[in-house]
Amino acid sequence: MGARSLVVLLFLMFILSFSSAYQGKKKQYKPCKQMVLYFHDVIYNGKNAANATSAIVGAPQWGNLTILADKFHFGNVVVFDDPITLDNNFHSKPVGRAQGMYIYDTKNTFTSWLGFTFVLNSTDFQGTLNFMGADPILVKTRDITVVSGTGDFFMHRGIATIMTDAFEGEVYFRLRVDIKLYECW
Amino acid sequence: MGARSLVVLLFLMFILSFSSAYQGKKKQYKPCKQMVLYFHDVIYNGKNAANATSAIVGAPQWGNLTILADKFHFGNVVVFDDPITLDNNFHSKPVGRAQGMYIYDTKNTFTSWLGFTFVLNSTDFQGTLNFMGADPILVKTRDITVVSGTGDFFMHRGIATIMTDAFEGEVYFRLRVDIKLYECW
Amino acid sequence: MGARSLVVLLFLMFILSFSSAYQGKKKQYKPCKQMVLYFHDVIYNGKNAANATSAIVGAPQWGNLTILADKFHFGNVVVFDDPITLDNNFHSKPVGRAQGMYIYDTKNTFTSWLGFTFVLNSTDFQGTLNFMGADPILVKTRDITVVSGTGDFFMHRGIATIMTDAFEGEVYFRLRVDIKLYECW
Repeated sequence: MGARSLVVLLFLMFILSFSSAYQGKKKQYKPCKQMVLYFHDVIYNGKNAANATSAIVGAPQWGNLTILADKFHFGNVVVFDDPITLDNNFHSKPVGRAQGMYIYDTKNTFTSWLGFTFVLNSTDFQGTLNFMGADPILVKTRDITVVSGTGDFFMHRGIATIMTDAFEGEVYFRLRVDIKLYECW
Repeated sequence: MGARSLVVLLFLMFILSFSSAYQGKKKQYKPCKQMVLYFHDVIYNGKNAANATSAIVGAPQWGNLTILADKFHFGNVVVFDDPITLDNNFHSKPVGRAQGMYIYDTKNTFTSWLGFTFVLNSTDFQGTLNFMGADPILVKTRDITVVSGTGDFFMHRGIATIMTDAFEGEVYFRLRVDIKLYECW
Repeated sequence: MGARSLVVLLFLMFILSFSSAYQGKKKQYKPCKQMVLYFHDVIYNGKNAANATSAIVGAPQWGNLTILADKFHFGNVVVFDDPITLDNNFHSKPVGRAQGMYIYDTKNTFTSWLGFTFVLNSTDFQGTLNFMGADPILVKTRDITVVSGTGDFFMHRGIATIMTDAFEGEVYFRLRVDIKLYECW
């Protein structure tokens, strides 16, 4: 091999090593972990104390704590402790609890703001995931964010695509949560 | 070119490629995206139902839901759906909505705690940004954090420097939000 | 040095530079910063206005704003501005304030959901840290997350292991917070 071909080889390697460094910088756009879970919310309405998993704890001046307020429930704050299941059956064995709050926050349509945690305790997953974001309820699928986690989800971050999977009057709803984690440690 | 000068070239390239790998590790301290937005809050006071964009939904024992409480509003929880504009004019065409809540949380000065989302829907930006942090209201500029995003802001993080741009009694305020994103995907 | 040994050297360098790029990708599992802090919560009970650092601002339909509600306080929302100290002494000089809210969110045991900020202002630290997570209060040590920061903690993330360090009736508690930051900028 002559000096000339060595220079060529050297250049190719240099470019290759540079591109590998560049890939070190680039983030991953395919989820490093993904799972689909459901959770079920039964709101307290003054008559269902035994079954209720959530309760109105804040209301605007024109509301009260037994019935969701007028004006698209604007101002209602709800605290919840909802069972999480692997399928859409309320009676399936829970794999954890969804705990936190949601707030109805528009006067002229249904939207909410979510701050809650999935506390997972199953053979598959031990740990928590924290969610935050705006939920334009009437849109079929909408994205909220996974801002952090603990245990199996130590330092994880990602996106959760949520979908209203069932809705019964103003007492029950079920959300399908497609969790896609893009930063895994 | 002799073998000796080849070794020198090789060394230079090695150092260069190493430093490029090193830069792959180092985080960026210049924003990868930056924008300035304003949002406008008109709090419900019992008389302005048509114009109000926010409402008191929680109060301490000594307060009520129509007027912000004594002791620097300590304990008041406010839910809001505020228009976001590109300039400081309340009547400019909104580019999105700021949705979430703020809490007054000190007894002897004005401070608040913020948890909210910018839902942006303009030709420039489609997506959401989630904010969280303590707001020492009387300080001229203060930093809160951008913890996550969706859409155009998928997985983004950063800092928002906020400034009270206008304040009218206890009914209206306008915040200038200088968003600096340091982690972009 | 002949062309052959040059090729060998070149290969070694290439592999070295590649492995350094790979290390650029790998995350750190030892904390890059760690500190232990305490904070102290004195809840308003109708009689301790002067000393109280927190107040009930939301309650379910069966509760009120002076006493934590039945059913494990399910639905109570508490806003706080608690002193942070370096040791477990309530009377030590505070190094900052813990500000935000907690929510009791289970009907059949004590759990809470936390969203708050440490506003630190000491010779050692100037900046804020934002916390979020589920707190199974009766467990000895539990992990919540540090989702973001400002100032000295610009863009930081990590885990906080919390422990109930003292508890007096339903008026006072002290939390020990072991903050471990794994992403430092």
